[in-house]
Amino acid sequence: MKTLSISAIAFLILLSINSRAQITNKVDQNNPNFVFPKGELGPADNFTGKAWNIGLIENDSVYNTVVGNVYFEPGARSNWHTHPSGQILIITDGEGYHQIKGQPRQTLKKGDIVKCPPNVEHWHGASPQAGMLQIYILPKTEKGIVTWLQKVTDEQYLSK
Amino acid sequence: MKTLSISAIAFLILLSINSRAQITNKVDQNNPNFVFPKGELGPADNFTGKAWNIGLIENDSVYNTVVGNVYFEPGARSNWHTHPSGQILIITDGEGYHQIKGQPRQTLKKGDIVKCPPNVEHWHGASPQAGMLQIYILPKTEKGIVTWLQKVTDEQYLSK
Repeated sequence: MKTLSISAIAFLILLSINSRAQITNKVDQNNPNFVFPKGELGPADNFTGKAWNIGLIENDSVYNTVVGNVYFEPGARSNWHTHPSGQILIITDGEGYHQIKGQPRQTLKKGDIVKCPPNVEHWHGASPQAGMLQIYILPKTEKGIVTWLQKVTDEQYLSK
Repeated sequence: MKTLSISAIAFLILLSINSRAQITNKVDQNNPNFVFPKGELGPADNFTGKAWNIGLIENDSVYNTVVGNVYFEPGARSNWHTHPSGQILIITDGEGYHQIKGQPRQTLKKGDIVKCPPNVEHWHGASPQAGMLQIYILPKTEKGIVTWLQKVTDEQYLSK
């Protein structure tokens, strides 16, 4: 009975630890909390690593606004690019970076909001260790959507 | 020793159940997954029940876009209102309703996206049983933000 009890206790301790591990995983940055489907893999011409995009609001002449969601896997980032009317980013989970050309790289986390002004070069992506989930908003799309530029080098990506 | 073991097992079973309950609560619609702070209580003149608002992007002449987050507690809803350039709603957790004047009430859940056209009367809010978390986007704010109208009656709120 004593041996059985010790085994049972050991099992329940493991079960308890496992349950706690699941709680931790729910908010772990390697397992982002998806609100939308993951979407389609972004083209290798415009992204380094795996970035998954789903469009939420398509462009039209009523709202002139494009909205979508991107999941950057750890290490993934966009190329440098510009938007003719700028961009608003809303970070909904994970951790990553945003950099405006000529400025230091910013670290982003859940709940952060970033604006990039019109026609300014920028890139965004996940940190090397954690994925990042972001909603993007492109306003005033009558002026256009995006102009893709060169890759973000590893040196640029890792510079602080 | 036997009594001690049984107590320890009972304790660990309770611990395990409690840990699992926490996991369930994380996705329960009565405990929405907050990305942003809850914000300020919306004024009783414009809302029925408790609706908490936090501004994320303030109006300016560069983006002409206002973004914010509302948490409607169970049973809470906005008044009828219009936006001169329309509105985009992104439901990030919970469950609720959206109704455009003259159309049936729509049920909304996590991941749903809704558009309401310019100058059209609408209301939105939580279901009676579950809170609702939503991000709102107001485009083309050079035309204005919002015109508040009459309360949504209980009959309107509960009509299917």
